Amino acid sequence: MKILVFGLGALGTVYSCLLKKAGHQVSGIDLPAVASHIEKQGVQVTGIWGEHHAFLDQTVDSLNRLKDTDFDLVIITVKAYQTAAVSRLLKALIKDNTYVFLAQNGYGNYEQAVEFIPPQQLILGRIIFGAVTINPGSSEVTVIADDVLLGHPRQLIAAATLQAWADVFRQAGIPTRYSPDIMPYVWAKIIYNSALNPLGAILEVPYGRLAEMEWSRELMDAIINEIFEVLKAQRQPTPWENAVLYRKDFYGQMVPSTAAHRASMLQDIQAGRKTEIDALNGAVVELGQQLGVNTPVNRVITSLIKCKQSLGMDGIN
Amino acid sequence: MKILVFGLGALGTVYSCLLKKAGHQVSGIDLPAVASHIEKQGVQVTGIWGEHHAFLDQTVDSLNRLKDTDFDLVIITVKAYQTAAVSRLLKALIKDNTYVFLAQNGYGNYEQAVEFIPPQQLILGRIIFGAVTINPGSSEVTVIADDVLLGHPRQLIAAATLQAWADVFRQAGIPTRYSPDIMPYVWAKIIYNSALNPLGAILEVPYGRLAEMEWSRELMDAIINEIFEVLKAQRQPTPWENAVLYRKDFYGQMVPSTAAHRASMLQDIQAGRKTEIDALNGAVVELGQQLGVNTPVNRVITSLIKCKQSLGMDGIN
Repeated sequence: MKILVFGLGALGTVYSCLLKKAGHQVSGIDLPAVASHIEKQGVQVTGIWGEHHAFLDQTVDSLNRLKDTDFDLVIITVKAYQTAAVSRLLKALIKDNTYVFLAQNGYGNYEQAVEFIPPQQLILGRIIFGAVTINPGSSEVTVIADDVLLGHPRQLIAAATLQAWADVFRQAGIPTRYSPDIMPYVWAKIIYNSALNPLGAILEVPYGRLAEMEWSRELMDAIINEIFEVLKAQRQPTPWENAVLYRKDFYGQMVPSTAAHRASMLQDIQAGRKTEIDALNGAVVELGQQLGVNTPVNRVITSLIKCKQSLGMDGIN
Repeated sequence: MKILVFGLGALGTVYSCLLKKAGHQVSGIDLPAVASHIEKQGVQVTGIWGEHHAFLDQTVDSLNRLKDTDFDLVIITVKAYQTAAVSRLLKALIKDNTYVFLAQNGYGNYEQAVEFIPPQQLILGRIIFGAVTINPGSSEVTVIADDVLLGHPRQLIAAATLQAWADVFRQAGIPTRYSPDIMPYVWAKIIYNSALNPLGAILEVPYGRLAEMEWSRELMDAIINEIFEVLKAQRQPTPWENAVLYRKDFYGQMVPSTAAHRASMLQDIQAGRKTEIDALNGAVVELGQQLGVNTPVNRVITSLIKCKQSLGMDGIN
């Protein structure tokens, strides 16, 4: 297969390296500093899936520099707030038979991509393995909670096609399966992230600590309840029938098994980067507004992260 | 006059020193470490009201140790969250002709004191001069925004009496006047503090920065709006007819003139102390609940401060 990986961060490095090693023709694109480093050094993966190294077929910093553009698949691994911009760029590049795999976090990636890319070419992923960047082009896979799921929010791609793509990834060493109903799982990850990530960043404590304090538990309960209200109004099912059942799993299993984890938003803020708040609690507020559901707690949390983000970019935090 | 100052922090030091120098018989009470230090060194005031030093008539660490208990006035300067406990202790000490002056911050001091002390003996103050502790028993007066106001929330003390007490303080060098309607001014300070103090502590920035960012402005606007809703339901006037007029003064004058100020709650949290959140945003939430007014933003802000406070006490912040 001819594959383009858009964004060569922790996740893009894993996908490009393992797919190349599996025999596919893989191109990568990222900012000039990253792209030139990877062109010289190649991509490297360590961690729970073993040690791998590969040189990509092309590594560029601009779509204009791609010599071969006849891709079967483009994997988008950029941050959620870049989805619209990247999709706009890809519009001119992709062919009728190119699939675009959204391998990102949060809500709104499909909704933004579909403004530029035909819906029947968009594959939505739910990824809950963890990878960290060691150096540009060098990633460590640290943990996997479940297979990557591939699906389509409106079931517009044939099951056989999605199954075939899942096989491509699985054969490359990335546990992946097709899901006929992916949105409940995408939302499961959004709920988990929205409850823990911003509070972990505002209070600067690991996830486990948030479940130990009465007041942060109340805030997380409220965040979760508001999201379930929004999903109910949207008639969007999740793997849990209601917020009470979700919270049972959340406090009983999910938080304990990631108790030492530190919020990625805190890392983003401390590094002066934008966070993915708009694809998490911010998206909940936005959806709530469209559906007439009040989400005051998610709104305050979103505003506080936007403050911290803005202070971080000014070098104050 | 025979006066007892309960709490010899920054404010208690100023009152005890200046009243003693004005010729009154002044006793002081605080924790053993502070009391024994002051017994040896006396109390000292520097700053905008000049340099003063005095030895108090008695400095004790327990009401049981007071030799003379026939006080005309007890000045309570402890933190708002200690008002109930202190009032309970004073119940046995005060006579029918003893006035108790609540020289504290926030809402709820009168309401808690009146559980133990007859209402017609309680004087409520609104203090907006600033004093900082240099050492135990040594305070610097840094700024004064307006006279101290003395009044009674239900007008149960004769104007002449309050006027006389205002004269006592003024003659000691503390600008003070009687206010026939003090609650609007007490609330004015609560609104200002509730908008700035917790956000300054959560985001760890000076007050001025909070007014510069879109997202913190929105949060402060929401905090202010909710308080005005609660006050409207309570039929409690303020010096501003509505939140819009308040915000005009708030952003136009109050914040600019205290732009460099850092939240006292942040100092409390960093020192592992309790904050006064329950007398500010927490009191707004409580009142809102009693009156059927939703205060979601004040609620989230209160919960976040309680988290930070709890983390600070554990030595995590």
